[in-house]
Amino acid sequence: MSLLPPQILKTIEEFSKLPGIGSKSAERLTFHLLRSGKANPEALGQALLTLKAQLKFCKTCQMVTTEEQCAICTNSSRDAGMVLVVEDPLDVLAFEKTGYKGRYHVLHGVLSPIDGMGPEQLKVRELIERAKVGDLTEVIIATNPDVEGEATATYLRQHLQQHVASITRLAHGLPLGADIEFADQGTLKEALGGRRSM
Amino acid sequence: MSLLPPQILKTIEEFSKLPGIGSKSAERLTFHLLRSGKANPEALGQALLTLKAQLKFCKTCQMVTTEEQCAICTNSSRDAGMVLVVEDPLDVLAFEKTGYKGRYHVLHGVLSPIDGMGPEQLKVRELIERAKVGDLTEVIIATNPDVEGEATATYLRQHLQQHVASITRLAHGLPLGADIEFADQGTLKEALGGRRSM
Repeated sequence: MSLLPPQILKTIEEFSKLPGIGSKSAERLTFHLLRSGKANPEALGQALLTLKAQLKFCKTCQMVTTEEQCAICTNSSRDAGMVLVVEDPLDVLAFEKTGYKGRYHVLHGVLSPIDGMGPEQLKVRELIERAKVGDLTEVIIATNPDVEGEATATYLRQHLQQHVASITRLAHGLPLGADIEFADQGTLKEALGGRRSM
Repeated sequence: MSLLPPQILKTIEEFSKLPGIGSKSAERLTFHLLRSGKANPEALGQALLTLKAQLKFCKTCQMVTTEEQCAICTNSSRDAGMVLVVEDPLDVLAFEKTGYKGRYHVLHGVLSPIDGMGPEQLKVRELIERAKVGDLTEVIIATNPDVEGEATATYLRQHLQQHVASITRLAHGLPLGADIEFADQGTLKEALGGRRSM
């Protein structure tokens, strides 16, 4: 590989550190950028260099923003007593499309001891502070329905229940458009247990 | 999407311009870089900014290099009369592993009118100049065995045949370890036609 100049080797190395990009994909991406018009690698390079530069976390909900507070927390028409707790900023975008009118809290991860993610690495303290100070009527825990997400939800419930009237979790069940034949056992059990009268 | 700061949107946009990376993957990569240690996006950003800065094409074979001529062209122990024509710098690396002892010529692409790639966009003129000037005994055309690669090979043969004694093409046939049962019709036909006495 020493036939290739160090600039190319370095780019390949950095690309291959990204999740889902192996060394072959990294080579392909690098040579694509090399061959394409002059603008492309520089544009991506500049975007990456300024990525973290002016970014802040909203002082209330910890969403990524360029201001002190994000557009959702400063919007007085939204229900300030309802807080939806999510893992990621992208989850906020997903819930925004549903027409949800409360506020959010972004944890920036889930509890995962194997990856070195404890409560200190997440925005958990900020959430508990928010629950202590504010008059929260409901905290909806919307971590992913996997092992880490469930553990995080349980941890949050234990630490929030003395401060918040109502702590809820997203419903489990069949997703819209699903085929019962192919649904897994756990989902079917949840769907049965959570059945509603119609 | 306007909920996300422009720095993040710009990074997602630039990532999603890369081949094989859709908008979802671009979001995932961006947030991975955001969450990971401080070094990561800056390292990739720097590598991309300097990617083209000091890179040159070897004046003889057009391989990427940091010098005027690449290490292969300046190596006098290699057969200067034999030139292997490849599409990509990565193809040079692949052939180097086979123990090939001649020289190379990198086209940096193949003829593909639909992508706006004509002979002027490739390093074809440089190859013809090389054939006119140098005493080339053999030119081996090693473009990929697909439609564009075959068209490029035919074009090169037409323009090189008055200058070079021997123009050859890589052999087609069954790859090592292949299963005849699953080989495609075209490959089997080539393997039959190119059979050798043993």
